[in-house]
Amino acid sequence: MEERKILLGNCILNNEKNSLSGGFVKINGETFYRIAGYNEMDPFFITIVSNSDHWMFLSSNGGITAGRKNPDNALFPYYTVDKIQDSGEITGSKSTFLVNRGKDTWLWEPFSDSYSGVYKIQRNLYKSIYGNKIIFEEINEQLKLTFSYSWMNSERFGIIRKSVLTNCGETDYNISILDGIINILPAGLTRTLQLTLSNLVDAYKKNERLLNTRIALYMLSSILVDRAEPSEALTANVVWSAGMPDAKIILSARNIDSFRKGHQVREDSDVRAERGAYLLNADINLEAGKANSWYIIADVNKDAGQIASLDHLLKGSNSIELLDTDVKEGTNELIKIIAAADGLQLTADKLSINRHLSNVFFNVMRGGIFDNNYSISKDDLIDFIKKANSSVYLRKRSFLESIDMQISMQTLLEKAALEDDPHLLRLCYEYLPLVLSRRHGDPSRPWNIFSIELKKENGSKSLNYQGNWRDIFQNWEALSLSYPLYVESMICKFLNASTADGYNPYRITRGGIDWESPDPHDPWASIGYWGDHQVIYLLKLLEISKKYHPGELNKMLSENIFAYADVPYRIKPYKDLVKDPFETIEFDYQAEKAALGRVKSIGSDGKLIQDSNDEVLLVNFTEKILVSILTKLSNFIPEAGIWMNTQRPEWNDANNALVGFGSSMVTLCYLRKLQHFLRELFIENSDSKFKVSEEIISFFKSINDTFIHYKPSLEREISDKERKSIIDALGTAGSEYREKIYKAGFSGEKNFISANELVKFLDLSMEFIDKSIRRNKRSDNLYHAYNLISFNDNGVTIRRLYEMLEGQVAVLSSGLMQPNEVNEVLDALKSSAMFREDQYSYMLYPDRQLPRFTEKNIIPSSLVATSKLLTDLVR
Amino acid sequence: MEERKILLGNCILNNEKNSLSGGFVKINGETFYRIAGYNEMDPFFITIVSNSDHWMFLSSNGGITAGRKNPDNALFPYYTVDKIQDSGEITGSKSTFLVNRGKDTWLWEPFSDSYSGVYKIQRNLYKSIYGNKIIFEEINEQLKLTFSYSWMNSERFGIIRKSVLTNCGETDYNISILDGIINILPAGLTRTLQLTLSNLVDAYKKNERLLNTRIALYMLSSILVDRAEPSEALTANVVWSAGMPDAKIILSARNIDSFRKGHQVREDSDVRAERGAYLLNADINLEAGKANSWYIIADVNKDAGQIASLDHLLKGSNSIELLDTDVKEGTNELIKIIAAADGLQLTADKLSINRHLSNVFFNVMRGGIFDNNYSISKDDLIDFIKKANSSVYLRKRSFLESIDMQISMQTLLEKAALEDDPHLLRLCYEYLPLVLSRRHGDPSRPWNIFSIELKKENGSKSLNYQGNWRDIFQNWEALSLSYPLYVESMICKFLNASTADGYNPYRITRGGIDWESPDPHDPWASIGYWGDHQVIYLLKLLEISKKYHPGELNKMLSENIFAYADVPYRIKPYKDLVKDPFETIEFDYQAEKAALGRVKSIGSDGKLIQDSNDEVLLVNFTEKILVSILTKLSNFIPEAGIWMNTQRPEWNDANNALVGFGSSMVTLCYLRKLQHFLRELFIENSDSKFKVSEEIISFFKSINDTFIHYKPSLEREISDKERKSIIDALGTAGSEYREKIYKAGFSGEKNFISANELVKFLDLSMEFIDKSIRRNKRSDNLYHAYNLISFNDNGVTIRRLYEMLEGQVAVLSSGLMQPNEVNEVLDALKSSAMFREDQYSYMLYPDRQLPRFTEKNIIPSSLVATSKLLTDLVR
Repeated sequence: MEERKILLGNCILNNEKNSLSGGFVKINGETFYRIAGYNEMDPFFITIVSNSDHWMFLSSNGGITAGRKNPDNALFPYYTVDKIQDSGEITGSKSTFLVNRGKDTWLWEPFSDSYSGVYKIQRNLYKSIYGNKIIFEEINEQLKLTFSYSWMNSERFGIIRKSVLTNCGETDYNISILDGIINILPAGLTRTLQLTLSNLVDAYKKNERLLNTRIALYMLSSILVDRAEPSEALTANVVWSAGMPDAKIILSARNIDSFRKGHQVREDSDVRAERGAYLLNADINLEAGKANSWYIIADVNKDAGQIASLDHLLKGSNSIELLDTDVKEGTNELIKIIAAADGLQLTADKLSINRHLSNVFFNVMRGGIFDNNYSISKDDLIDFIKKANSSVYLRKRSFLESIDMQISMQTLLEKAALEDDPHLLRLCYEYLPLVLSRRHGDPSRPWNIFSIELKKENGSKSLNYQGNWRDIFQNWEALSLSYPLYVESMICKFLNASTADGYNPYRITRGGIDWESPDPHDPWASIGYWGDHQVIYLLKLLEISKKYHPGELNKMLSENIFAYADVPYRIKPYKDLVKDPFETIEFDYQAEKAALGRVKSIGSDGKLIQDSNDEVLLVNFTEKILVSILTKLSNFIPEAGIWMNTQRPEWNDANNALVGFGSSMVTLCYLRKLQHFLRELFIENSDSKFKVSEEIISFFKSINDTFIHYKPSLEREISDKERKSIIDALGTAGSEYREKIYKAGFSGEKNFISANELVKFLDLSMEFIDKSIRRNKRSDNLYHAYNLISFNDNGVTIRRLYEMLEGQVAVLSSGLMQPNEVNEVLDALKSSAMFREDQYSYMLYPDRQLPRFTEKNIIPSSLVATSKLLTDLVR
Repeated sequence: MEERKILLGNCILNNEKNSLSGGFVKINGETFYRIAGYNEMDPFFITIVSNSDHWMFLSSNGGITAGRKNPDNALFPYYTVDKIQDSGEITGSKSTFLVNRGKDTWLWEPFSDSYSGVYKIQRNLYKSIYGNKIIFEEINEQLKLTFSYSWMNSERFGIIRKSVLTNCGETDYNISILDGIINILPAGLTRTLQLTLSNLVDAYKKNERLLNTRIALYMLSSILVDRAEPSEALTANVVWSAGMPDAKIILSARNIDSFRKGHQVREDSDVRAERGAYLLNADINLEAGKANSWYIIADVNKDAGQIASLDHLLKGSNSIELLDTDVKEGTNELIKIIAAADGLQLTADKLSINRHLSNVFFNVMRGGIFDNNYSISKDDLIDFIKKANSSVYLRKRSFLESIDMQISMQTLLEKAALEDDPHLLRLCYEYLPLVLSRRHGDPSRPWNIFSIELKKENGSKSLNYQGNWRDIFQNWEALSLSYPLYVESMICKFLNASTADGYNPYRITRGGIDWESPDPHDPWASIGYWGDHQVIYLLKLLEISKKYHPGELNKMLSENIFAYADVPYRIKPYKDLVKDPFETIEFDYQAEKAALGRVKSIGSDGKLIQDSNDEVLLVNFTEKILVSILTKLSNFIPEAGIWMNTQRPEWNDANNALVGFGSSMVTLCYLRKLQHFLRELFIENSDSKFKVSEEIISFFKSINDTFIHYKPSLEREISDKERKSIIDALGTAGSEYREKIYKAGFSGEKNFISANELVKFLDLSMEFIDKSIRRNKRSDNLYHAYNLISFNDNGVTIRRLYEMLEGQVAVLSSGLMQPNEVNEVLDALKSSAMFREDQYSYMLYPDRQLPRFTEKNIIPSSLVATSKLLTDLVR
């Protein structure tokens, strides 16, 4: 198609497309990935990372949010990604130039889409391979000028924006500059306040120049609260500049339009009720071939003392040197972290090695990284134990005081083992000296909010981690390969945080566990258990332990160093689950109150189940793993998978609609893999027997008896009716076990169970599992991932769903497939609607055409015909 | 200053200012107010009103939110005003034209600031004097084209946008049009969801063309919930067009940029995961001097049946005629409403009469208007009584059934009076057949959310009103002048909804009262009583009753048709108020549960205090008014005002910081005015005596005795110590009364109190009040509005605050001022810093310079010197 010539007034619009290309380039010795012509792509979202507590998210159109620690300490508004993209013109970087040569003056607004097509331009985007710097570049081919700005961070100074204006032409210019950042937030603002009441916030804004400095302060005239109380704002967000000492400093964006029209702009010293801005205004001479650069530096939430120190520092130093040094130091720190997590590779495939690098660092940003390899700080260990269990701390105080200031993890565990206090040993195992961990949640996933907790109130280092269960153990799986000595600690953390009824709390933190509570005021608050985590995440850690520390698991089989989390959820009896599989969990307010009371008196161990001596009830690995397996098997639906009846889907939120009547083949496949692993483990220990709580023994017996009883069914086609009998028997076994421990807790009585018994049980139940998996093979050689079940008078019927990727991954992992079967599945996948030729990759499920509006909610005419009322109405 | 010539590429920017002017113009026989050159002003905010349940808010830069009923039924995102203003380019109207003549093609994007200055343009804004239509007009002086679009509403069809493109030049054009609306929301979205999770919402969006029609549907592919359950979206927002039958219809805004560059755009029929758009694309020939117009019509939340009906209707009719007729009908309805509320004036001062017109309609939009003058629908009355008190309904059922289908308010009250059932009479008095009322709250006041409840689920008419106490009685004051027969009903509603401890609930509705409850999950949830409403709002209604129905109040003095609201707030004992005047109210969860239980069993009367027979406790006007006055006087601080100790400020939220230690002269002045009014009333009834609950009698005696005891203090300078003695005595009286009724409720015993006793009491207490007011005169002849008090060992000291307008208004209203004193105050006001010459008006308080950041939180050096630690630290 021929391009049409279009005029804008008297100007011919330049509608030529930039060519789009990617590649690595070096800038001042640092490697960046460049996307040339990035503006030809739809706006995309970018994270800039930091070795410290900075966070920054950008849209490629310039929209930005950034700050420190969490979204309540933001420099620019923290919104969802779509709103950040919408704010490209009103938040963040803003540059307006009046370019003079001879009698002519041109207006140029790089990166703005306001006057798009007026100049022939080229835009490029550069991101440092470490992910902590980004450069936006616009080349004005008509004016022969290049402007770029970059974002970087500095632990000492905050967030840095560097501008470079280059005259690439052959004649000199005089250029009037108005360049800086706009929509700067005041300190003392929460994310929610800015989101819901921003117009009120705007009215309270105050932007002040710190007199006789280049520092500007952004604050609220008073803190907004809906309580009847005065609240003074005693911190400010702080912005200053370097490299353009004589420029005017403009504190409000309302001057931009006037500047654009060629008017003089006036410097502000005190602006009320306007969004914050820090704009430098100066006229510079830019000779042909020369460049000019300047910096704007912003930090959040500083008090009067910190501001005075900054002023003092800047007056006595070369601030650009200070900035450069600190930015460099930050990058070095970042490289160290990545290196420590085995993120640095060296191959010829640059794309892959840098992809690996950023993957590793993102993994660290969730699960954390060990602060000082295997070296543990005594002080931090003591801090941890004190907060976890004050009585363990008190009785083991002299031991704890006696150890070295820095001690290796291995030595600590050896010494602790000699103390003959299993509670101490449990806590030492559980101690994980992690830093940099944060929950997920970012502008594209607003249902969680991150917080990067690196510092205590006084600014000193704070070791910390937190994460949703679903995330953190995945991250630790990868981390454990870099720090294999900690894998048993991760296993302990995992097992100690799982419940007696076989599930796990929502979130784990350094300080223990968190569960969700119902909130009648919040329609989004709900409770439930994700069902699959107990199986696959744990198995991965177990495999790593077995591989790197053969024998460690064997020891744990009978060592009583594990606990039960006391989550106050009460799964209803089996018959109620059948009646209404959507409402299956009751919240036990009483139990929550008791647990929180214990936390107050002894520490975070208060959230664990206690024994009759008010100590944490201790059990061994065999018992913990039995609980997981028996729980899953008590929800086993022959030929359909594991029943999803705990008000939450499996790991995939898209399966929300399956909860209740869904049944997971995915979990069943992984359960098979776990059972196979355990079978090997118990065979290795075939002469041993293990002491297990009598409640678990009797649960085990019920489940085992059921499988023995129905063994003949393995040889025949199973009817819906027989299926129901098996489900009833398994479900009732689970139900009776739960009733017992919910009502009376654990008796404390334990009995032996032998490795042989366990192996036999695992074998038998795997026969059922294997048959079920095989029966879920589709005619196209794929496997069903989930099924729908319904309970009715005649039994339990199964309905199949469409194909999903996770079902294939699970069946391939299950260990059941023979090599030829593996090939079959892979070929089938490639031929399926899940394969995307353009990306040479797979989608989670086929891109299905949803029913159109008029196709929904239709009563088939055959049904209408059966109703006299409807027939009459239609007539 | 000379204008600088600035180039944009090859084009000279037009930076000429439009002249700004306002005036009335007629368009098609309708009067509009025009602001010519409105774009020279800062963007401002506009409301478009409706006779029905439409709501629409716009920024003058084009940003818009609109919908029906409430923000959960929105066509465009409902955000705060600043965010609506930010969305001028991405939400609402969007027009792009490629204007062809001969070989030339010009790009023109009216109303966009994208290419501002490229053309010489003139922009005008027109708003209909009835406020239900707005027209945006842009004249391109270079191309000689005018484009305008208007927003209107139609009860039948929803929200209408009409475009008119006029060729004002002398040559013909061929014009490619892309015009319509963008960022259309899907149905089934709540305000909160869009605000907090809009990126997730975007992913669920589905824009569909209804096949073989010009109708497009905007929906969610499924309803977003965080519970594990499927939820199908069965309603859609609906957009269609008229007047451009052959135009392509484009459902996504991503085509605009491509159109701008001269590419063909493709029609969509099914767009997923993109914001909704409805853009018409056509090439038209526009002859010199001719105009072309077209319509886009949008409505929210329609089901499949309604959409089928619309399709059917449009296929068989001239849709533009239907639109015009319905818009006209709506305007006529609107005029009727305004007329009924006395909003139509006729003078030569057009600005004033139109200002009055819109004031009146805005008053109606809060407080409501009577549905059918004084005529009451039996069905609605029965509906009201049934929901208020099912036992009254049951026992008076035959009476209620016996009345005419339509009955006048007066006849109803007369007939009800003959029934000898005071509960029936109370409810008939309280019945107010209002429509169009809504709580306040709009994008500039996001802390409240309006809902325009005009229709029941089935679409039939619903009478309703609701409002925060602080608002609705103000609105009714004005309304009562148009409907004076209802003023006693308003008084009854007022008094029946006030509490036994002398305050009022947060909100009143047709269905009774609402209070705020604490919510531990919401930091913004708090409880408390605003203190001043009991006085001035009631007094205004009483004055109107006395003026229009002399004698009515006299009757009420002893008629037992009033009740007490049972708000579960418990004001602490006096000594606790003194100890911590910030935390003064406890929430009685038990009492709330009981009240809500009663509501379930008998209806909304369950929120009233019950007597020993489980009937609503009935008292007379004398008792109710005594409770108000005694409560205020029990918080009287001699020479400082009425103590603000109920966790909320007076009417002015800016006084938040005064709560606790503030003391209101404003309320004291109005209390004087009320007491004066009551004095007259009781003098008119000087031979009467009134039966009042014994608890009130004894409260009265304590307060009265205190004033008698301290009468000598009127003659002397009062010391801080004596002040404290008086406060102690009055406060303790209030405290003892509260303790009694909180603990045991009302005994039911009543005793007589005579009019003479009351007059003597009012006189005496007014002497104290008058002295206090006089002592609050400032040296500049203004009066203090609020004071700060502090309790200490030596008494209660007073600190004065800066001047405030409300203090002067109150003192002028108090009735105490002699004519010369009135002049003094007015002169002082005019000379004060509150006067604004530019507006020839007053500000609430002077525009004070707030302390700069570095001036806050400073410890004076004299204080530092007294501390050894600080001195050492400084050294």
